[in-house]
Amino acid sequence: MLITEPILLLDKEKCLRNIKFMAEKAVRHNLIFRPHLKTPQSAEIAKWYKEFGVTKITVSSLKMAEYFASDGWTINWEDITIAFPVNILQTDRINKLASKINLNILIACEDVMETLNKEITSKVNFFIKIDTGYHRSGIELKNIEEIESILKKADKSKLIFKGFLAHSGHSYNAKSLEEIQAIHNYSLDVMRELKSTYLDDYPDLITTIGDTPSCSLMENFEGIDEIRPGNFIFYDLAQWKIGSCSLDKIAVAMSCPVISKNKERQEILVHGGGIHFAKDVSSLEDGTPYYGLVVNLSDKFNTGWEIPESKSYVRSLCQEHGVIKASDELYSKVKIGDRIGILPIHSCMTADCMKKYYTLAEEEINMLKY
Amino acid sequence: MLITEPILLLDKEKCLRNIKFMAEKAVRHNLIFRPHLKTPQSAEIAKWYKEFGVTKITVSSLKMAEYFASDGWTINWEDITIAFPVNILQTDRINKLASKINLNILIACEDVMETLNKEITSKVNFFIKIDTGYHRSGIELKNIEEIESILKKADKSKLIFKGFLAHSGHSYNAKSLEEIQAIHNYSLDVMRELKSTYLDDYPDLITTIGDTPSCSLMENFEGIDEIRPGNFIFYDLAQWKIGSCSLDKIAVAMSCPVISKNKERQEILVHGGGIHFAKDVSSLEDGTPYYGLVVNLSDKFNTGWEIPESKSYVRSLCQEHGVIKASDELYSKVKIGDRIGILPIHSCMTADCMKKYYTLAEEEINMLKY
Repeated sequence: MLITEPILLLDKEKCLRNIKFMAEKAVRHNLIFRPHLKTPQSAEIAKWYKEFGVTKITVSSLKMAEYFASDGWTINWEDITIAFPVNILQTDRINKLASKINLNILIACEDVMETLNKEITSKVNFFIKIDTGYHRSGIELKNIEEIESILKKADKSKLIFKGFLAHSGHSYNAKSLEEIQAIHNYSLDVMRELKSTYLDDYPDLITTIGDTPSCSLMENFEGIDEIRPGNFIFYDLAQWKIGSCSLDKIAVAMSCPVISKNKERQEILVHGGGIHFAKDVSSLEDGTPYYGLVVNLSDKFNTGWEIPESKSYVRSLCQEHGVIKASDELYSKVKIGDRIGILPIHSCMTADCMKKYYTLAEEEINMLKY
Repeated sequence: MLITEPILLLDKEKCLRNIKFMAEKAVRHNLIFRPHLKTPQSAEIAKWYKEFGVTKITVSSLKMAEYFASDGWTINWEDITIAFPVNILQTDRINKLASKINLNILIACEDVMETLNKEITSKVNFFIKIDTGYHRSGIELKNIEEIESILKKADKSKLIFKGFLAHSGHSYNAKSLEEIQAIHNYSLDVMRELKSTYLDDYPDLITTIGDTPSCSLMENFEGIDEIRPGNFIFYDLAQWKIGSCSLDKIAVAMSCPVISKNKERQEILVHGGGIHFAKDVSSLEDGTPYYGLVVNLSDKFNTGWEIPESKSYVRSLCQEHGVIKASDELYSKVKIGDRIGILPIHSCMTADCMKKYYTLAEEEINMLKY
């Protein structure tokens, strides 16, 4: 295979191990496992989850729900949750999709109810978005009267209440396991409280949480019925930094052609920039910002990559350029025209930029195109 | 036009004014104007430059050169410069393209010469990349023997020396006009020095520089033959921050649907995240990081947007979510289901994410698809 441009490598075995780990954890804790497919965004990869018993999925947009529900794909999901608060401009498309599949939408505030009651004509399930401290969207427990009001208004509509959905996205910024634990515990407290308040009136309601750090690291899910992690299938350096995974679990790596070398600065220029990696940044132990970590690509394509002893990292990204601060070992070994493997900071964003994967078996895997 | 998702608006009149400004400046200083099309990445928009006499263009990848050179487009450029150091894995495609158009490639180090001499079989012009302090790629003046060596090796090949190319990208991080001036002056000094050294042997050589801050703000181009700015056609908040443009020159704005509102935090959630804006970040006057500035979209689509008195800004971006810190005025005015206009931090990256523009005349303009 002659590839002359930056590509995104995908180690299927690692993905399968990551899915297996999470699927088994869900079984162990008696949880519904509804993976978030905003990470791989691929109907092909979606099939891999099925092997581990997954029948329900999460997506982050109506477009993505339409893609995974499309007749063109051989996958028929039991139901799909759009874990992004409903966009009231899209009620027509929601009706259309909900007439074909079991669709769950997300309601994050009471103000959308009037439009939904008027315009939703298909049977649609909904979750109420609960803000457990991330403060991006949703209703805090202290504003329980807004929840009451949503439920009351939904009573006269086609909308069927399915439960409470939270995403403690602030766990991605946690500095320690204790901090993740504290975030997770608060989330459990809130969801238990809501469940005990509403279970009598809605005996089928479920509670669902989603962040990869909590789902990866925690072992107490009391009061939770469902988990929706997404990133865990690939993991990445951001997850590694907060302890959600080891480096050898990261299942995607950019492969970038070496363009030039600078001896004085011991730097390597690769083709691979912000339009390939996305611009997510993390920091090394000493606080230096960085955009990716170099791995050793095997000579044989199908054997993947290995973590080197001495660290080399991407120090800057422009539109098409990546500049690598190279270890002595990397600098002396690499030649112009070689390819360098680089683990991404945020795999969801990198995958979204690249729009295509190459497995180690040299198969191309396509993603949703926008 | 019913659009329910985030889109990128483009004010053609502002683009034309920005192009006119730069084209007239080039004439005034007797400079070749070779705009960098990595910003718009669109054959349709490329035609707009032609109205101002542009016949030569810059691109940032071989793929982009192939796109703009494609027979399918009605534009035939006099020549195309790929202002990204040559990737020696792509010599076959370079030969193919160079057999059809006048192609200029960029050489950033001597180590590529052996491969190029062996594998370049079409007539190809080349620039030598000079590092004027950005330290991304290229050769510093103190290493002039590497330039000598490249020229000597090229003598026996199909490669034709065209001149010296610099990009003082560190001007994008300048904190003051004086700093941009200093960066620009150093760049002029280096290029003049090289010109005086090599003009006798290569009487047709030209010197070319490219950064938008210098091209926008400076008035001395002594010793420079060509400018290659790209970003100036759209400008953005990063350029505004360093003084390259006023806010009313920014020619693109995201238009994002309002999803929910939070009264306590006076925040507005929009559909529009990192996969739409890219994750480039800037900072407000008090140092607060931000990802975009809200503008008032006119009720009538075709009249564009206006800069409000009171500032509202994007405080965070996730994959699909944008969270806006709203002014009192914005918060009280905006309703769920409205659209909010947002100027981007880095327009090149936002355009690359969006892959399509909507002009104020409601025309869709497509971009290069990867």
